[in-house]
Amino acid sequence: MKQKYSVILGNLGNTRDRFCAGYKDNPPTMEMLRRAFRIPDVTGIELVGTWDIRPDNVREMKSALEDAGWRCVSIIPDLFTQAIYGKGALSSTDPKVRRHAIDNTKSMCEAALELNCELINLWPGQDGFDYLLATDYEQERENECCSVRELATAYPMLRFALEYKPKEPRTHSYLGRMAETLLLAQETGCQNVGVTVDTGHAFYAGEVVADQLIVAKRAGNRLFHMHFNDNYAAWDDDMIVGSVHTVEYLEILYWLDRTGYNGWLSMDQYPYREEAAEAIGESVQWLKQFETILRESRSEIDQLIIQRDGVATSRFLRGVLGPRAMKNV
Amino acid sequence: MKQKYSVILGNLGNTRDRFCAGYKDNPPTMEMLRRAFRIPDVTGIELVGTWDIRPDNVREMKSALEDAGWRCVSIIPDLFTQAIYGKGALSSTDPKVRRHAIDNTKSMCEAALELNCELINLWPGQDGFDYLLATDYEQERENECCSVRELATAYPMLRFALEYKPKEPRTHSYLGRMAETLLLAQETGCQNVGVTVDTGHAFYAGEVVADQLIVAKRAGNRLFHMHFNDNYAAWDDDMIVGSVHTVEYLEILYWLDRTGYNGWLSMDQYPYREEAAEAIGESVQWLKQFETILRESRSEIDQLIIQRDGVATSRFLRGVLGPRAMKNV
Amino acid sequence: MKQKYSVILGNLGNTRDRFCAGYKDNPPTMEMLRRAFRIPDVTGIELVGTWDIRPDNVREMKSALEDAGWRCVSIIPDLFTQAIYGKGALSSTDPKVRRHAIDNTKSMCEAALELNCELINLWPGQDGFDYLLATDYEQERENECCSVRELATAYPMLRFALEYKPKEPRTHSYLGRMAETLLLAQETGCQNVGVTVDTGHAFYAGEVVADQLIVAKRAGNRLFHMHFNDNYAAWDDDMIVGSVHTVEYLEILYWLDRTGYNGWLSMDQYPYREEAAEAIGESVQWLKQFETILRESRSEIDQLIIQRDGVATSRFLRGVLGPRAMKNV
Amino acid sequence: MKQKYSVILGNLGNTRDRFCAGYKDNPPTMEMLRRAFRIPDVTGIELVGTWDIRPDNVREMKSALEDAGWRCVSIIPDLFTQAIYGKGALSSTDPKVRRHAIDNTKSMCEAALELNCELINLWPGQDGFDYLLATDYEQERENECCSVRELATAYPMLRFALEYKPKEPRTHSYLGRMAETLLLAQETGCQNVGVTVDTGHAFYAGEVVADQLIVAKRAGNRLFHMHFNDNYAAWDDDMIVGSVHTVEYLEILYWLDRTGYNGWLSMDQYPYREEAAEAIGESVQWLKQFETILRESRSEIDQLIIQRDGVATSRFLRGVLGPRAMKNV
Repeated sequence: MKQKYSVILGNLGNTRDRFCAGYKDNPPTMEMLRRAFRIPDVTGIELVGTWDIRPDNVREMKSALEDAGWRCVSIIPDLFTQAIYGKGALSSTDPKVRRHAIDNTKSMCEAALELNCELINLWPGQDGFDYLLATDYEQERENECCSVRELATAYPMLRFALEYKPKEPRTHSYLGRMAETLLLAQETGCQNVGVTVDTGHAFYAGEVVADQLIVAKRAGNRLFHMHFNDNYAAWDDDMIVGSVHTVEYLEILYWLDRTGYNGWLSMDQYPYREEAAEAIGESVQWLKQFETILRESRSEIDQLIIQRDGVATSRFLRGVLGPRAMKNV
Repeated sequence: MKQKYSVILGNLGNTRDRFCAGYKDNPPTMEMLRRAFRIPDVTGIELVGTWDIRPDNVREMKSALEDAGWRCVSIIPDLFTQAIYGKGALSSTDPKVRRHAIDNTKSMCEAALELNCELINLWPGQDGFDYLLATDYEQERENECCSVRELATAYPMLRFALEYKPKEPRTHSYLGRMAETLLLAQETGCQNVGVTVDTGHAFYAGEVVADQLIVAKRAGNRLFHMHFNDNYAAWDDDMIVGSVHTVEYLEILYWLDRTGYNGWLSMDQYPYREEAAEAIGESVQWLKQFETILRESRSEIDQLIIQRDGVATSRFLRGVLGPRAMKNV
Repeated sequence: MKQKYSVILGNLGNTRDRFCAGYKDNPPTMEMLRRAFRIPDVTGIELVGTWDIRPDNVREMKSALEDAGWRCVSIIPDLFTQAIYGKGALSSTDPKVRRHAIDNTKSMCEAALELNCELINLWPGQDGFDYLLATDYEQERENECCSVRELATAYPMLRFALEYKPKEPRTHSYLGRMAETLLLAQETGCQNVGVTVDTGHAFYAGEVVADQLIVAKRAGNRLFHMHFNDNYAAWDDDMIVGSVHTVEYLEILYWLDRTGYNGWLSMDQYPYREEAAEAIGESVQWLKQFETILRESRSEIDQLIIQRDGVATSRFLRGVLGPRAMKNV
Repeated sequence: MKQKYSVILGNLGNTRDRFCAGYKDNPPTMEMLRRAFRIPDVTGIELVGTWDIRPDNVREMKSALEDAGWRCVSIIPDLFTQAIYGKGALSSTDPKVRRHAIDNTKSMCEAALELNCELINLWPGQDGFDYLLATDYEQERENECCSVRELATAYPMLRFALEYKPKEPRTHSYLGRMAETLLLAQETGCQNVGVTVDTGHAFYAGEVVADQLIVAKRAGNRLFHMHFNDNYAAWDDDMIVGSVHTVEYLEILYWLDRTGYNGWLSMDQYPYREEAAEAIGESVQWLKQFETILRESRSEIDQLIIQRDGVATSRFLRGVLGPRAMKNV
């Protein structure tokens, strides 16, 4: 299992919150790209539509990536930063808004084709609701499904990975967790619709990621893409991998392998107060370290999951996570 | 919409927690039944298998219910109180345990048939896991599916409602939320497998129930049964309806009606420290009160969910939840 | 008990989140003020330092408020929007940053004096931490205490209300909940240091506000100020009062009265997608409605809290929150 | 820093939940004690009053402990298993109940004196509330304070450690978090009243334990005792240390040392489905392993907490938690 690591370009720039408009400067796209190129062990990039990638800079981007030997792993159409999508984009009950969102995404599909990028990462962040008794869930869920179907049908050569997230910016998202995202993927009737797991989203959704990988497999092998970050299991803190959780990542990587995942491992962080390239690079190194443990211990873990004994697993974990007798980092 | 209200018999008895073995006495089954009969507006009962209903008391129960003009709304097989199910029942990797759980449930299916009860409420509380890297999720989820399929196939005249719950007694349940329960129901390939929503389970799963009713409808009208109670959205506190939430219940009842639900509204509480029949009866009266509001305001709400404006909804809610000018309770 | 209602000026303008820089236009300060003046039943304003109030516009503000017969209820110094405070303001281990924060606040104290405003609402949003093993909690908590003491000592004629919040923008705040804020207030040794309760912050901190009002009373009557809004008990959603919770507000108002609170009831919302003045005005009307219930039922509630019976309370609540026999809103 | 490890005797017996009365057999007290003696590196025991220790078996217990060279680290009076305490024990508004609870505790103080045990671990699990508008928080908090003061005054040679917990068995506890427990300790006016931190309780209270150790230190060095276990930060799962969290324990042990804690490190678990002695023993070994890391890296950590850089800390953690080059477990 040779892993491919990628990063999201925008994470290298300014990451603001609702109070502070900027903890640091926001460099131009190509400067961010150069910073990305310097992160060790990474060879793929994800681009947010109209921020990082626009019809007018596709060529420049393509050539920059080719020169560096990098791949465009996915394009993430911007369905979340524009006021027009405030009460929904792909799910909107306003046909004009929905059309705007679909056309916006199609334009990004074109960019993807030019960049030889095979995956559209759809995060419909505004598709959800806030107030009770103020939403026609039936109509909006149907709209969401139809919009995704239209996209997937129009671009059968692309794969559409729906990134679920329980909330934010809405208090509740339509694609909030793995299983409801799989249901929608199935309802589209399109084989090229699947799921992106963001480990942090799953943590604060109350999911155990490895278990949900099985749910995705059973629903027709619908896991298309992986985003990595960490948090305190209560909000999308978008921190460095390994900051809070340790064992969970080991388990995730084990089951990604067992379920035959061969996509990218992509970092998705908001390093508000940290040097971005370094913070993102740390996550990659954590994942590599967990892979090393896995490589050395796969058959032991195979036994442990059959054994079903928390004590035996604990004993194993102490062995592999202990202090190094000889450190040569 | 004429509502049918029911209660779970065991809720009228002793409700212990892990520290205190009993806050009150535990009356015999038939005494609890007599207490249930006195709760106003209720005409249905749910029975927990081997606690309340056993092969040896089916006849007595049947005749008691008939005399009272009550219905047995569901049987809930006991898949959660016996040590043998500690690491899983229907999902267990131990074939003997699985067989035990299936046979136990089948015996309750027989009881249901005798009682003219059409619904088996399956709450596989022990089917889940606690420790990471100590479970073969793939095998156990497959087992869960096969067990349910075997039951549903053996008893095509019964409906099997899977009651989901995010956790407890395990730290994570396989049937944790609406959508993953629907996926399993679909995987069985059986039309007589559906879902029980427990409002409290949904609250602390981070779901908005009304929205999930739509998810269930889209997945083939799989909502079979409803359990009502309240909590602080962080644990299964099993409190009186209306203790914490207000607007949510109004919205749930509205969408139950719109999605054509015609099953029972059943109370499922743990009145540890309250007089049980009274505490359960309060929930029924809250639901009736919300139904009254709905009856008077249905067309207004129809407009509000199209309007998508939290302010308009707030203004409406103040109108219907305000202090009564003239109280004549 | 005649209530005084106020609003935070900035809530009437643009309320962005970390993804969308603006769901609506941001009007000039004086235009926002005119909008505030039109909200029924409100007669007080809170101003955020350097956004709404600066040395250069104090006079204009003062005269505008006087003309309208309004009061400046508090000034909220900006300790959260500037990059310099990214790793802490009053608690910073960098003496220059701390001095900047203190001087900034003192300048707002001067503005308060000019405006006849008696209260500084201190929300030290950046005073906290994100990563484990990356903070000297001991030094930073000591700094926080010393900074507040310096301010309270320099302006003994003003009251400093510390607004606690469990997290955001940091993953953990030093002033996260009522009791740790009271401890810090006591440690300053200053009688003019107390607490602001934001109902939403308390909800997602797992607190029952009414209970915490008692904690504040026992610690020397340290409740200085109240902010009102609602949420789903998992994040600071800053919604309209009554959107999610109902009974909690009734209980809060009851205990505010019993503990002798005579400060302002101030609305603090982020109406991202709603017309701001209307959304904020709704909260005021909800509180007024709850006050009406209280006025009519105070002695009943006095009995209920002695009775300690959830059933009796439920029965009472159904009576006061039911559908109105005769609506004359 | 030489650590002293202890366990709670009852954790070695049956650990039931509210559904299953017993996942395993419950051995007699002295048999459980023999099992405890076999757990490596442990030399102290905590006894639950009237379960493990009663006036009639104090002598037998004392001699058994002396023979083994063990210490009785604390007695935990039973204020949580008896129905009489259902609506409160030390805080009860019923003077008879309160007297019962105080006398019960005093009897355990006598036992402690006989056993040369210096610490009473008070966990007032039933002192809290469930329903809103059904509790006189003011009276009950005052009762709690007076009861603790009476005990601490009557036994000045003993130390009373209040174990806080946000909820369970009540939906809200009076001693829910560190700071409100410290406030109550201060209100008693007794120097021999302090706090027990249970790491799991703190995790699901949203606290970072190390930070709260500073809060306790600032409030007069009131940390008296430590309980260790792990959970998913949403409930008191009482799992093996290290099952979910890793870095947090390292940080806790670091700050325990820096704040001069010299008490016991006690394991408090509910190994429902695991062999109890082994599961508890695992926690001890995890703590020992973290101590080894600390011993080798203390000066590095000293620098990291001054550096305030999540990236630097991450790099360090990868170094100490990585796969061992040479494993010799």
